[in-house]
Amino acid sequence: MNHDSAQPGASDALTYRAAGVDYDLIDPLKLSAQRAAAATAVNLAPHGFAEVAASRGESAYVVDVGPFYLASIVECLGSKALVADEMARLTGTSAYAAIAQDTIAMAVNDLITVGATPLVVQAYWAAGGSDWFKDADRAAALVAGWKRACDACGVAWGGGETPALAGIVADGRIDLAASCTGIVSPKSRLSTGDRLAPGDAIVLLAASGIHANGLSLARKIAERLPDGYATPIDDAGTTLGAALLAPTPLYSPVTEALHRAAVDLHYCANITGHGWRKLLRHPSALTYRITHVPPVPPVLRYIQQAAGQSDREAYGTFNMGAGFALFVAGDQAERCVDVARAAGTEAWVAGRVEAGPKQLIVEPLGIEFGADDLQLR
Amino acid sequence: MNHDSAQPGASDALTYRAAGVDYDLIDPLKLSAQRAAAATAVNLAPHGFAEVAASRGESAYVVDVGPFYLASIVECLGSKALVADEMARLTGTSAYAAIAQDTIAMAVNDLITVGATPLVVQAYWAAGGSDWFKDADRAAALVAGWKRACDACGVAWGGGETPALAGIVADGRIDLAASCTGIVSPKSRLSTGDRLAPGDAIVLLAASGIHANGLSLARKIAERLPDGYATPIDDAGTTLGAALLAPTPLYSPVTEALHRAAVDLHYCANITGHGWRKLLRHPSALTYRITHVPPVPPVLRYIQQAAGQSDREAYGTFNMGAGFALFVAGDQAERCVDVARAAGTEAWVAGRVEAGPKQLIVEPLGIEFGADDLQLR
Repeated sequence: MNHDSAQPGASDALTYRAAGVDYDLIDPLKLSAQRAAAATAVNLAPHGFAEVAASRGESAYVVDVGPFYLASIVECLGSKALVADEMARLTGTSAYAAIAQDTIAMAVNDLITVGATPLVVQAYWAAGGSDWFKDADRAAALVAGWKRACDACGVAWGGGETPALAGIVADGRIDLAASCTGIVSPKSRLSTGDRLAPGDAIVLLAASGIHANGLSLARKIAERLPDGYATPIDDAGTTLGAALLAPTPLYSPVTEALHRAAVDLHYCANITGHGWRKLLRHPSALTYRITHVPPVPPVLRYIQQAAGQSDREAYGTFNMGAGFALFVAGDQAERCVDVARAAGTEAWVAGRVEAGPKQLIVEPLGIEFGADDLQLR
Repeated sequence: MNHDSAQPGASDALTYRAAGVDYDLIDPLKLSAQRAAAATAVNLAPHGFAEVAASRGESAYVVDVGPFYLASIVECLGSKALVADEMARLTGTSAYAAIAQDTIAMAVNDLITVGATPLVVQAYWAAGGSDWFKDADRAAALVAGWKRACDACGVAWGGGETPALAGIVADGRIDLAASCTGIVSPKSRLSTGDRLAPGDAIVLLAASGIHANGLSLARKIAERLPDGYATPIDDAGTTLGAALLAPTPLYSPVTEALHRAAVDLHYCANITGHGWRKLLRHPSALTYRITHVPPVPPVLRYIQQAAGQSDREAYGTFNMGAGFALFVAGDQAERCVDVARAAGTEAWVAGRVEAGPKQLIVEPLGIEFGADDLQLR
């Protein structure tokens, strides 16, 4: 189970619980599901295969099928579709092409963390009744955005499901999810973290905005504003709603380019729920020292201020400008940045891995997170 | 897109449209999605791979990755969870272990049609808010049933998503889906139908009941009954609700046993939506002549009568006792049946493939379906 479960630090500010997501209720199920899932690994032996045990608890599940590793994942968009629906009501324009990209990004950006090349995406579009499909412009935007994202990632769109689930999915809504299958080939590309070590550099890839995590909180903030999503958040008049709907970058062109350039990824972390606490994802006891902090997207700074969050709360909740983390040998850090930029994604050498207790130190902001701040396994 | 889209023949009886599913609204989206998806196949070439074009329009998507084929799928349970919820209210007992198996069966039984061995299942459990997870018995049943089905199919449960999607999934409901990844190995197991030919036998595998297709119609019928799901449908007092919740069989143990026994599958059809019209799934112009009809599960006979359906309508909508069709060389038909029975699934040699126009002739019932009765591609 890869879904986000931990909480940012205690706070009087607007929290996830106040925004309607109570992880304490979900966690017992997640834990029992994780245990049951782990116990099924033995089922692969009669086929002559075995799981990569280190992938349990990582963002994608990996099986050794002989000539290469097989990686798979299912991910959902979450509540960002509600923002798209509300903005369509306010502006008359569908953002479904953008949220199609978000949905694929949720799956693809997780799959690539283990070193996989994504190959096939399946679409899961569950509507709250047949009427959802009546809006031809919205449906066309969804299809066009989905295809464009597949093309950008070099994956084949294999097919999918488009059920009309009246009574299960809410009336007028759609539940968007994607499954993705890929391979790790050559097997040396596996980046589940056995090579992660002191001296490694931390390279951060730029985020475009909130991506698809933290939207429940953002929606609560919009509800409190007199002008809601139409509230301008910068001098250019960009609205909160438009800024929230900036699509999540697809990072697989970067990881594929890094492979071609022989930049060896020791580990990767997709910065989604829990924000920068995801930098603590690997189970090893290591210290992660950040010495350079990327620029914060205006929409995230706006939300931080509106929610009254401290930096520690904001960086423990949102990506704050860093959408994906690459851990590479120190002497490959500059090359890694150059390759990412050449692939069209801004990147920075942001810090380093050190021997020491499990903690994340963000020096420029004077904040720290410890081992107890992220419990995903 | 593999979702069911065609309609049974015109009828004054209770139809799918009356039951709230309007395929005319879904189909334009599905067609444009299919076209867009097909255009992404070229994305595999830079990786050195290619799709198996014949798998477009089949139940699972297949890619040639060199040493073997990779197959993948995402499938949802549909509205059967609503029946489980209502029966839990009436009886105090959760049927979530059973519908967990249904969900996995929807994915696994589709994946095996192309000759694949299922290896990994991912869970997608999207609840209508955190409160869904408060019912610990229900959650435990879901986990236990999911694991048991994975064990029965010999697949590893890789992980999944358990989002709380208040505002998207209806309050108190859950949207259950599964993705499945497998391989076709050796590649000669590929059963997308190039060997399907006159002289082949049609072997049908027994259904357990309604499975997970046709539930919208069944729910409408229950609503019309004074005692609803508590209505007994046989002399033993089995209720309609209990009978509807019989879990879908998992057919992958049969197809794996057939491979070990060197029974060569020319083609397979998972009999889901559209009922027996799915026997017309392969694009070839061939005549399928059924000479033996399996016994009809009591719950399906009950629904047929309650809905006032003719045999043609019932067999064009429900599985009517045949959950899966195997197409094998005529001289392997008896062996195929023996192996299926030894694997624990009742089976029958039900008919044969003949040269002739595309049609299905069910001789014992005097009904026929033509090429126009199933449009999936």
